[in-house]
Amino acid sequence: MTNHFHTIVIGAGSGGMTAAIGLAGLGKQVAFIEGNHVGGDCTNVGCVPSKTLIHLAKHFKPGMNPDEALQEVTRKRDALRDKETEEVRHLKNVTFIEGWAKFSAPKEIEVTLKAGGTQKLSAENIVISTGARPRMIEISGLPKERTLTNESLFDLRDMPKHLVVAGAGVIAMEMAFAFRKLGAKVTMYALDPRPLAVYIPEVSEALQPEIEKKGIVTHYGATATGFDEAAKTLTLKQGEKEIKIQDVDKVLVAVGRVRNLESLGLDQAQIKWDARTGVQVNSFGETNVKGVYAIGDVTPTSAFTHSANAQGRRVIQRIAFPFLPLAKKEPIFPNATFSDPEVANVGLTQKQIAEKYHPQLIKRIRVDFKDHTDRGYTDGVENGFIIADVIRLTGQILHVTIVGTNASEMISFFTLAISQKISLHKIYRLVYPYPTFSSGILKVADFFMRETLPNIRKELGAFLKYRFLKGN
Amino acid sequence: MTNHFHTIVIGAGSGGMTAAIGLAGLGKQVAFIEGNHVGGDCTNVGCVPSKTLIHLAKHFKPGMNPDEALQEVTRKRDALRDKETEEVRHLKNVTFIEGWAKFSAPKEIEVTLKAGGTQKLSAENIVISTGARPRMIEISGLPKERTLTNESLFDLRDMPKHLVVAGAGVIAMEMAFAFRKLGAKVTMYALDPRPLAVYIPEVSEALQPEIEKKGIVTHYGATATGFDEAAKTLTLKQGEKEIKIQDVDKVLVAVGRVRNLESLGLDQAQIKWDARTGVQVNSFGETNVKGVYAIGDVTPTSAFTHSANAQGRRVIQRIAFPFLPLAKKEPIFPNATFSDPEVANVGLTQKQIAEKYHPQLIKRIRVDFKDHTDRGYTDGVENGFIIADVIRLTGQILHVTIVGTNASEMISFFTLAISQKISLHKIYRLVYPYPTFSSGILKVADFFMRETLPNIRKELGAFLKYRFLKGN
Repeated sequence: MTNHFHTIVIGAGSGGMTAAIGLAGLGKQVAFIEGNHVGGDCTNVGCVPSKTLIHLAKHFKPGMNPDEALQEVTRKRDALRDKETEEVRHLKNVTFIEGWAKFSAPKEIEVTLKAGGTQKLSAENIVISTGARPRMIEISGLPKERTLTNESLFDLRDMPKHLVVAGAGVIAMEMAFAFRKLGAKVTMYALDPRPLAVYIPEVSEALQPEIEKKGIVTHYGATATGFDEAAKTLTLKQGEKEIKIQDVDKVLVAVGRVRNLESLGLDQAQIKWDARTGVQVNSFGETNVKGVYAIGDVTPTSAFTHSANAQGRRVIQRIAFPFLPLAKKEPIFPNATFSDPEVANVGLTQKQIAEKYHPQLIKRIRVDFKDHTDRGYTDGVENGFIIADVIRLTGQILHVTIVGTNASEMISFFTLAISQKISLHKIYRLVYPYPTFSSGILKVADFFMRETLPNIRKELGAFLKYRFLKGN
Repeated sequence: MTNHFHTIVIGAGSGGMTAAIGLAGLGKQVAFIEGNHVGGDCTNVGCVPSKTLIHLAKHFKPGMNPDEALQEVTRKRDALRDKETEEVRHLKNVTFIEGWAKFSAPKEIEVTLKAGGTQKLSAENIVISTGARPRMIEISGLPKERTLTNESLFDLRDMPKHLVVAGAGVIAMEMAFAFRKLGAKVTMYALDPRPLAVYIPEVSEALQPEIEKKGIVTHYGATATGFDEAAKTLTLKQGEKEIKIQDVDKVLVAVGRVRNLESLGLDQAQIKWDARTGVQVNSFGETNVKGVYAIGDVTPTSAFTHSANAQGRRVIQRIAFPFLPLAKKEPIFPNATFSDPEVANVGLTQKQIAEKYHPQLIKRIRVDFKDHTDRGYTDGVENGFIIADVIRLTGQILHVTIVGTNASEMISFFTLAISQKISLHKIYRLVYPYPTFSSGILKVADFFMRETLPNIRKELGAFLKYRFLKGN
């Protein structure tokens, strides 16, 4: 027997939850399939436990017990997971199926049920939101019980005395800072030449002294060659140099993520995908097969809960209101890392700017909180900035990166400014509470105006000359 | 001999500094008069020392020495003061005069010099930026050496064991939280019925449990009737009740501010003012006497460094570029209090909304961080919200108040949205980094859309019916 639905949603992470709950709320019959925990990475092994841990680490004081912090993380995570699971089970119009899905045809799914057996389903629309998992690396000699990923990290009961973090990306950095504050000795190593290499190089320059100040030891351009269990020693190779890391308790592997796609049977359904970039989708999340959508980590453009949610919302609109106009482009996705200081950015990448604009058309404005804001002074900030790439003369903002205590909150101002095309000329006229880090925004506008107004003829000439010329 | 200048600026606080430095930078000859410290309240007895103290208090840990925090505040304050004083002394086109100014005629000033003697000055333009000072209250029996105001607070060398704060306004609340965190016992009393009564009542409701959680004792609707030095006991009267506060070391008086106007000789110059509302100015800061301006605390509309700066910038434009068009209205001034959690607001007051709009035209949206954002959950937030008053159907934002950890930073998003008339319909389409407090902004838009979209006919009807009707 085949059950037919309006929509099948595969994967109950942030994107899938948004899509399933939204469509069910509009009266559509939804089959919702999950083999693991409801809530996906975000609730179970991502944002929720990691931000709980980061919050507890921030308020951690000498004399407190770090094990209790770890246990509080698990408690909060489990409470939210239970609540979400209960909600999903009782959603009107949702048939929740625990198991693993595989395409048998473009609009047909076979589920290997957790309880045993299989079930066949079909639907007019299918949403793939199976997410991603940590990429594993082999370190010869490293026992399994010393190896952690973000999937096992938040089940830790005892604080490791010495945590080695493999990787220098978002998860690696967030956890390195948090565990260090909770009292662990932390050593990081990565193949990357710098921390948070996904951002512009200025971010790494600002972050590295903060990493060192907190006592996190780092080795960049390094790989692990082996672990000696008897000596609890990890050996790294950094160019010609060999580095011994001693007394290692745990190794957190955070070297990237792999999309959960290979066992979905996408080829049987003729859905185009590849392991490197994910499922090919148009700006509405639709794959090459009409009626089959993909959102979240499995797509090329989204690696965050908030972007998965946004894609989920677009897919709801597309499926439920196919005749309603929907903006051609995806909304812009801001990005935040909860290191200390935080890092956030929004807008075009450096590559996109270089492809689209002549370099002479772009001005870079940099405001350092330490030198250019009184709040930076009162708070003793040493490293932190707002960098904005804008079009000269018009002050249209293309890209902003912020390193600072509240970068993840401050960035939304620029998401609004960029998406509503509000130029620095207008931002210059706003008043910002004193003394905040946001008053650095005024400085960005102020620096732009000081460069532009006295040289208005030159700026106009350059603008007219370069505006239709491309970069590269 | 009379010295003639393009502009005389009286008072070297934030507003005066902005005006003097700005005009001098444009090549105008400026006389800059200050009898006290350069930098005004902000640098010397306001934002800079208070935010330094708040920052140190936030990072204060058991075992640290609170006296060192106080001394660090003084050190940072003095360093900035010295730097600013040196800068002012060496500014091109600025004649810095140390003394006290008094109008002898509409465009004539007599300065009683600090060094002795007097000096007469005249100018085409005069800017009054003499600021304000703490309002004092008499407490019979309280010795002078136990009495503090924000002017003497930051010269404290030793942490008081028990600090009584008189007042429940912005300065009172900020300092109560900071001194409590630094380990002092803190008791607050105020005539006000609630803390931070300048904000909407929901702010006080959210703040009071946080005040209590931190162990600050409060007595509202209370006045002091006397101090017994032998017993170190302050007696309060709260209605019929008498309250004894024992072992009092210091009393911080923070019950409001008085404008520094009465000794300026404004009447000789026919400048209209009164003690209650300050100097009467139009939206460009000009008094009834052409060429005489007032900015900052002495005006009816500004009580903040950032608004004084904004007014200073407007006066520069008005004086230096009289023929350039300048927006008729003052920009909107956001407002922030650095309590814990912080409080910030922007937009119209409740009174202005009631005067301008029919109550049926307004929708109030409230998002609680605890219930409606995952960040509120991970961070264990109990009290904190975004409240927005918006026009129904259109989603145009009139007023926003935020109580939360980063309220002072988050508010600028709404300053931008209100001043650029960006409705909740547009804000709904933005993506916010997860998990941030700013994702509460999306919830505000979400709640509005959920109330509006399914009832669009009713909303349209109500909008059309009430939009031209006034309140009250």
